[in-house]
Amino acid sequence: MGLVVQKYGGSSVADAESIKRVARRIVDTAQAGNQVVVVVSAMGDTTDDLRDLAQQVSPLPPARELDMLLTAGERISMALVAMAIHDLGHQARSYTGSQAGVITDSAHGKARIIDITPGRIRQAIDEGHVAIVAGFQGVSQDTKEITTLGRGASDTTAVALAAALGADVCEIYTDVDGVFTADPRIVPNARRIARITSEEMLEMAACGTKVLHLRCVEYARRYRMPVHVRSSFSTREGTWVIDTDTEGQDMEQAIISGVSHDRSEAKITVVGVPDQPGKAAAIFQAVARAEINIDMIVQNVSAASTGLTDVSFTLPKTDGVIAMSTLEGIQAEVGFAALQYDDQIGKVSLVGAGMRTHPGVSATFFEALALTGVNIEMISTSEIRISVVTRAEDVDAAVRAVHTAFGLDALEVEAVVYGGTGR
Amino acid sequence: MGLVVQKYGGSSVADAESIKRVARRIVDTAQAGNQVVVVVSAMGDTTDDLRDLAQQVSPLPPARELDMLLTAGERISMALVAMAIHDLGHQARSYTGSQAGVITDSAHGKARIIDITPGRIRQAIDEGHVAIVAGFQGVSQDTKEITTLGRGASDTTAVALAAALGADVCEIYTDVDGVFTADPRIVPNARRIARITSEEMLEMAACGTKVLHLRCVEYARRYRMPVHVRSSFSTREGTWVIDTDTEGQDMEQAIISGVSHDRSEAKITVVGVPDQPGKAAAIFQAVARAEINIDMIVQNVSAASTGLTDVSFTLPKTDGVIAMSTLEGIQAEVGFAALQYDDQIGKVSLVGAGMRTHPGVSATFFEALALTGVNIEMISTSEIRISVVTRAEDVDAAVRAVHTAFGLDALEVEAVVYGGTGR
Repeated sequence: MGLVVQKYGGSSVADAESIKRVARRIVDTAQAGNQVVVVVSAMGDTTDDLRDLAQQVSPLPPARELDMLLTAGERISMALVAMAIHDLGHQARSYTGSQAGVITDSAHGKARIIDITPGRIRQAIDEGHVAIVAGFQGVSQDTKEITTLGRGASDTTAVALAAALGADVCEIYTDVDGVFTADPRIVPNARRIARITSEEMLEMAACGTKVLHLRCVEYARRYRMPVHVRSSFSTREGTWVIDTDTEGQDMEQAIISGVSHDRSEAKITVVGVPDQPGKAAAIFQAVARAEINIDMIVQNVSAASTGLTDVSFTLPKTDGVIAMSTLEGIQAEVGFAALQYDDQIGKVSLVGAGMRTHPGVSATFFEALALTGVNIEMISTSEIRISVVTRAEDVDAAVRAVHTAFGLDALEVEAVVYGGTGR
Repeated sequence: MGLVVQKYGGSSVADAESIKRVARRIVDTAQAGNQVVVVVSAMGDTTDDLRDLAQQVSPLPPARELDMLLTAGERISMALVAMAIHDLGHQARSYTGSQAGVITDSAHGKARIIDITPGRIRQAIDEGHVAIVAGFQGVSQDTKEITTLGRGASDTTAVALAAALGADVCEIYTDVDGVFTADPRIVPNARRIARITSEEMLEMAACGTKVLHLRCVEYARRYRMPVHVRSSFSTREGTWVIDTDTEGQDMEQAIISGVSHDRSEAKITVVGVPDQPGKAAAIFQAVARAEINIDMIVQNVSAASTGLTDVSFTLPKTDGVIAMSTLEGIQAEVGFAALQYDDQIGKVSLVGAGMRTHPGVSATFFEALALTGVNIEMISTSEIRISVVTRAEDVDAAVRAVHTAFGLDALEVEAVVYGGTGR
């Protein structure tokens, strides 16, 4: 019928039994008349185990060697999946990122895909094989070195490969039945989202909804590749991420897509910044030079009496140490008084394309938080999103309150978490 | 000073601590002014663990995928060794067999090296890096598929690479101090052999002395590469395997090199074979077609009254099942009476180039066995070797008796086994 790219995450190939189940599913798809290309992550906790091993040998391992090490993870899972398919009587061949033609830049550990030249994959599927491809990895264009795309990037491999092959659909298999209106671990009666635009999915991924990787959604949007997020543990329909331009017409558009939350960020406050032109710029230029992605920024109104102001911003906790040392390095130059670091924050976001045309959304949002007694520390908005920073311990209550306030609660529990704790 | 190729086996890189110790040794060699290329095996039991995983997924995994799977093992160890060297302040880069230019035929699981094109390795060492190369693996010339060279073949990778680079020496690191006149686990006062010809080493390896891999010695002999077998756990001199033609003159040649033993073989007896021309040929042609390597052959003298004879041969136990089914398939055609399979045998061999010029060696050998009460079931000899097949439970006693009879016992215990149980 068509060409299907399927991606299975680490929890879907965590052990021999899981791998056999996944193989059955792949063979079923092939026997239904499809050409099938499969992208796999490393088994279960393999990548973390390999990182631990590296740590035991060297506290700061060279990035090239870390990539060489970590890419062993998918090599193992892809070969095992191919074996399991073979055992069911179907032909399958596994390919490393390099063999599959995943060409990247040479930024080890966070490489970006430059091009995909899937000649060997095309040949394999044209010869009737299922092609199994290692996610998360590629080969650098200039130096022919093995690279990794950064965590969770197997989704990106799958969508990029699907686009390069002109696939009909890219199916992302995970351990939940799709994207929900909130994290079912916090809101048990969250609803499964049947269809969502890539624009909204982008905002949700950026705001902490972990089902799909951010860069993967960007790829899907750019190449207009339909993505179907679903569970490898059931045969239910999951969530279709589709392109607004091509399918927007007949889409039953919900006002609100869902509530996302994120506990991975910290807040830095630069206290007592002289309220003069160029001071804020100096701060953020220094942070940018250290390659830190900042998220939200708030500058207090300057107290006229002192001529000083406070600047707060949020950033990934993992960048906290380097950001603080970077800022300490420019304290004399900028002339601020002190730095505060706070990693006990959380972010709660409401995403929905309907916000554009439905006034009053933000009023309902803030009212819901107020009624629950959640204090708002920072606010940021886009056309289709409202985000607030709260205390970390208030996140669950805030998510539940907002979910209920916008009528997103399902009558019954729809979400089933099949696998372990993560992907 | 020179170019040194070092090979470290699985027990030398079994965990993070071992890897750090090996890295220290490598850096010492480099800081002494040498260019260093290192070949590593997979960590400890990794290869066996990966094989187990494959078995759980498929009882008969395709060879291509098994090679893809197993090659993950050296990928992990080589990256970790490179990291550990880096951590000591020296530059190092790891290379897969394919990247190192190890070109093989396409016989997955038992590929042979066709050529080595070590351009990237040469460049790395010329730039002052230590090059770490995955042992045991390569890439096929025709199909560009990942291949493995078969078990224990990291030694072969090291010697072949040393020859291709024109290295001054190939050091094979293991968990004993070299090659001994017998297995120190059986003969505690076995002597370390300081120098041995490659011809004798070949015979000992073929007869079960496991310190060096057979194909590796063949390579060393063909390319006249000096090999130094030594322990990664000490700095003592080990055993030098050298070429007779170039160094034979000044070598103090012992009459007997040592006593080897092997418990990995089984014996098949074809009972009641008609004593007619072509019958034995039919048996061994069938076995050869099944790609089984047979070792020793004995044919009984035909009893004139029956016109029937028995043919016995030894073969690796791992080939036992296929050999028996092959022979059952030709029973009607050849007309033999029955098949007997015996896997409780052992082989004891005496190796020494001095046998050529010293008569009486075999008399002493057989007398020693007779005095110990060991029954001999089969005999085979070459110019520099005598081998006998005995009951498996008699092997230890036979090895000790022969070792003593030829005056090989050391006055003190020389052998120290540093690591675990294997290499």
